[in-house]
Amino acid sequence: MVKLITKTLELIQERQMDSEVGFVPTMGNLHAGHLSLLRDALSQFKTVYFSIFVNPKQFGPQEDFNRYPRTLEKDLELIQETVKNFPDSKVIVFHPENPQEIFPPNFNLNISVWNLNRLLEGEKRPGHFDGVTTVVYQLFHLVKPHTAYFGLKDYQQYLIIKQMVKDLHLPIHIKGMPIIREESGLALSSRNQYLSNEEKMSSLKLNLTLKKIVEILDSKKSNLPKGRVYIQQTLQDKNWNYLELRDSETLSQNIDHSKNISILAVYQLGSTRLLDNMQVEIK
Amino acid sequence: MVKLITKTLELIQERQMDSEVGFVPTMGNLHAGHLSLLRDALSQFKTVYFSIFVNPKQFGPQEDFNRYPRTLEKDLELIQETVKNFPDSKVIVFHPENPQEIFPPNFNLNISVWNLNRLLEGEKRPGHFDGVTTVVYQLFHLVKPHTAYFGLKDYQQYLIIKQMVKDLHLPIHIKGMPIIREESGLALSSRNQYLSNEEKMSSLKLNLTLKKIVEILDSKKSNLPKGRVYIQQTLQDKNWNYLELRDSETLSQNIDHSKNISILAVYQLGSTRLLDNMQVEIK
Repeated sequence: MVKLITKTLELIQERQMDSEVGFVPTMGNLHAGHLSLLRDALSQFKTVYFSIFVNPKQFGPQEDFNRYPRTLEKDLELIQETVKNFPDSKVIVFHPENPQEIFPPNFNLNISVWNLNRLLEGEKRPGHFDGVTTVVYQLFHLVKPHTAYFGLKDYQQYLIIKQMVKDLHLPIHIKGMPIIREESGLALSSRNQYLSNEEKMSSLKLNLTLKKIVEILDSKKSNLPKGRVYIQQTLQDKNWNYLELRDSETLSQNIDHSKNISILAVYQLGSTRLLDNMQVEIK
Repeated sequence: MVKLITKTLELIQERQMDSEVGFVPTMGNLHAGHLSLLRDALSQFKTVYFSIFVNPKQFGPQEDFNRYPRTLEKDLELIQETVKNFPDSKVIVFHPENPQEIFPPNFNLNISVWNLNRLLEGEKRPGHFDGVTTVVYQLFHLVKPHTAYFGLKDYQQYLIIKQMVKDLHLPIHIKGMPIIREESGLALSSRNQYLSNEEKMSSLKLNLTLKKIVEILDSKKSNLPKGRVYIQQTLQDKNWNYLELRDSETLSQNIDHSKNISILAVYQLGSTRLLDNMQVEIK
């Protein structure tokens, strides 16, 4: 069963029906990545809250807030289809039509996770992660989930949400879910549809490069210098916003003693920034 | 009864003993202002938590964190004396000796109340209010008070805490308590003891000026221009950090339709900034 709710007050009432619920926060325009989160949530909880809210606070003034795809009807169909395999389950879709349902007038609060919010994506998109943490806090407050699901494609976001939950002592489990890819290797993203055919071809380089670096590192600390040289060469291509090795827990550049290393990258085609990452365990 | 606790874990255990408690957060070096908060809390709650913590996060790098007076023994005596008048009551003094009891290693969170945190005191002391909101959140989380008491001398701080509590949906009542003054009119403050005898004389100007402005305004909107002229003249004295009329709810400078106006001032003597304010209802 799928139920659509557009008002906060209605959500608060509905929420009283269940004790423990799962939560999948999204900006809509769903693809197989989102649905994999939903499936996992449904396998764990009888009731799953699923929010669809294009959060104005996480877009910069020059960014794609207005053209960000809004496809509610199709999203609801996809959710409906997914929930069919869980006949006893309930999905509450929360789609606040008015941002004031989430941020009332005179709302003045900002939650930051320093300094993770200023690195990498945060450096490229000032204020982005504060917008994310602030909206997620509001949604967590309304939904009060036992577990919330986030895709690991946005790896930095995942770390930041985990840190926020820890530092604010929120009794919520954050579950990071594997990246879902096209057959070509391109990580699924709502922004992929911005790509022209030609750009789509070029985009394959992103995944191939990450795979190549994983291969070069081969889980061995001694291969780090080789990996770095390869990255240096790769960065000749100015389409890379960044391509970096970072500690998987702290995102520090100091990875000489890291047990897990993230390869974090943004490859930009036209105005479309394609985000991807891979994780390497150092043995 | 007064009980001193220095560890967070001990505090959490102790807190389970009572359902509803009052809370007075302070930086210690207590004076009659703090004790008036404590008395009010004791008149309402059988158990009052009273924190003494000089919060490093709310001091700027050039500020008086190191020389800020720490007088635990005397503070405990004053609390003991105050609680004598409430024989059935209990005061739990929380004095974390190590800041890590409040901000564990790897704590990375920052809570801001935009844009109240950038005006007036926030403009003079960048980051100050973020330090305040962040520590108060941590303390609120530990103490889980029904009501928390703040002195209205720090009027902007009081508004910011109220806004934080509202926007984060914390189930805590914030009670603002009247300014306590010396006979001379000088508002009590731990920083008053930094003043030399000569500065102490000069400090009287602060209260006199505020009283004069209240008198000029005489609760009438039509007197605002006269008040502004007086302020302009007063500001010739460069010891004023600021002296402003602001809306009492929003701290906006646009007060033409305000029902309540705050006269907010900092008068600086040497390196000591003396803070004061008065409220005027416009009829």
